[in-house]
Amino acid sequence: MSSLSPLLVVDLVGIAVFAASGAVAGVAKRLDLFGVIFVGFTAALGGGILRDLFVNVQPFAFVDWRYAAVAVVTAAATFWLHPAVSKLRRTVLVLDAAGLGLFVVTGTLKALDAGVPAFGACIIGMITGIGGGLVRDLLTGEIPTVLRREIYAVAGLCGCASVATLDALEVQRPLNITLAATLTFVLRMVAIRRNWSAPTAS
Amino acid sequence: MSSLSPLLVVDLVGIAVFAASGAVAGVAKRLDLFGVIFVGFTAALGGGILRDLFVNVQPFAFVDWRYAAVAVVTAAATFWLHPAVSKLRRTVLVLDAAGLGLFVVTGTLKALDAGVPAFGACIIGMITGIGGGLVRDLLTGEIPTVLRREIYAVAGLCGCASVATLDALEVQRPLNITLAATLTFVLRMVAIRRNWSAPTAS
Amino acid sequence: MSSLSPLLVVDLVGIAVFAASGAVAGVAKRLDLFGVIFVGFTAALGGGILRDLFVNVQPFAFVDWRYAAVAVVTAAATFWLHPAVSKLRRTVLVLDAAGLGLFVVTGTLKALDAGVPAFGACIIGMITGIGGGLVRDLLTGEIPTVLRREIYAVAGLCGCASVATLDALEVQRPLNITLAATLTFVLRMVAIRRNWSAPTAS
Repeated sequence: MSSLSPLLVVDLVGIAVFAASGAVAGVAKRLDLFGVIFVGFTAALGGGILRDLFVNVQPFAFVDWRYAAVAVVTAAATFWLHPAVSKLRRTVLVLDAAGLGLFVVTGTLKALDAGVPAFGACIIGMITGIGGGLVRDLLTGEIPTVLRREIYAVAGLCGCASVATLDALEVQRPLNITLAATLTFVLRMVAIRRNWSAPTAS
Repeated sequence: MSSLSPLLVVDLVGIAVFAASGAVAGVAKRLDLFGVIFVGFTAALGGGILRDLFVNVQPFAFVDWRYAAVAVVTAAATFWLHPAVSKLRRTVLVLDAAGLGLFVVTGTLKALDAGVPAFGACIIGMITGIGGGLVRDLLTGEIPTVLRREIYAVAGLCGCASVATLDALEVQRPLNITLAATLTFVLRMVAIRRNWSAPTAS
Repeated sequence: MSSLSPLLVVDLVGIAVFAASGAVAGVAKRLDLFGVIFVGFTAALGGGILRDLFVNVQPFAFVDWRYAAVAVVTAAATFWLHPAVSKLRRTVLVLDAAGLGLFVVTGTLKALDAGVPAFGACIIGMITGIGGGLVRDLLTGEIPTVLRREIYAVAGLCGCASVATLDALEVQRPLNITLAATLTFVLRMVAIRRNWSAPTAS
């Protein structure tokens, strides 16, 4: 927890991007400064908190202060700079896809390491990636976007399935994480480019 | 976890019915295929996940893949067959009452076995029965039905109280479960027949 | 758990006030008797349940029946007496501020005692104070008030920070709790008097 490894850096970047998405949603709903920071915090860390509750450990978000600090600072900055953040929409989408990739993959591995079988570990991994956005939407009075349109959770699930498969094949962790997170990222970016959506019922 | 006992079969039927109720709600809100499956999953397993968080163990929904698989397959089938499922409204109500009976009773026992005192165990048992529907309604932007009308949670609470009482009297488990779940089922069916409702404030 | 210490008495008063706030919200949304009691229960005990999930113990709300009993009885009484309760708005605000002060301070200490570092313990303490109201608002279909206006959570955070600081300075518990809870109470009361609000984004 004390060194700033490459993995941690990507992790913190993902958290910052998720926090900004929460803060933008909070600003749009006219929340006050505290509300904007709180929604940013839950958007950034809610998925990881759910994951840790499901694997039955104290949530990392409360144990390592750097995660919470990055989320709080980013959300507060977004409160004041939100017009500029909104203009970065394209960049935010790319970083969000990177965050999704990393969160679902590390979430799945954390569940596997805690003894959860592969099927359940993939569900926990997916919730790690989408949970923050779900809670953000609930707090701001919206039916969660992830349930309504776009290929987002499904890209995450592909990442979960591949990291679990490669882990069963005893592929080394750094390689495994890189492969599965990249797959998720690419799937998500292609889905955005091609406007892929899951079907709705007729 | 490996044999297909009568209890497990009833359990899985209850989960399938709850998943169908979640999927129908998701279709009605125009969620996409992923959203319909996700809401079905949470409607079916959300109550049990809450119960396991409260008694402080890893949620069974992630540990035994059969529960998640039944929920996912049922929700996906409902996505395509929802007009047919809607026509089965009467059958669904009966199976739902059976699921409620089983979930509240086994939820109460699981809490008692984990050392929770009877009063708290009954609340956990009730939440096992109503939690999935609660989360389903929150995810689809509704004030939870269970808080507004009909005798549903109260029927569940009667089942919780009776299973806890019989357990304190050292009645054997299979008999106890059968009696208390049947009581809940009958109460719920009578409440539907007679249109019983809890009062609202004047 | 068996003696009725001064701390417990204040705790139960706070729970009763929070339960009444939940019940009033439930009555306003035309929930039935069960719904009013359930929302009262979650408003009173939801923050403490979240705290206990985060520090990874069985929630006290299910372990000690007196908390749940006070919440249920108060919510039921409010169901019948809600016009009278509404007239007590001023008294309720004062008692609510006292409850907030006690909940954030004891929540922070419980997290510290469970080994959570100070920064995370303060966040958990704050959630102990605001979590019940958050869940109350979500269950009744509102964007949580605490995210939109007034100085409420921020007063709580000041209490969390001061109790954590005094604890690090090894100030004795009874004195520490009294000082930090009083600080929170006073901040909250001044914020109400002066109509202080956090800023919203321009």
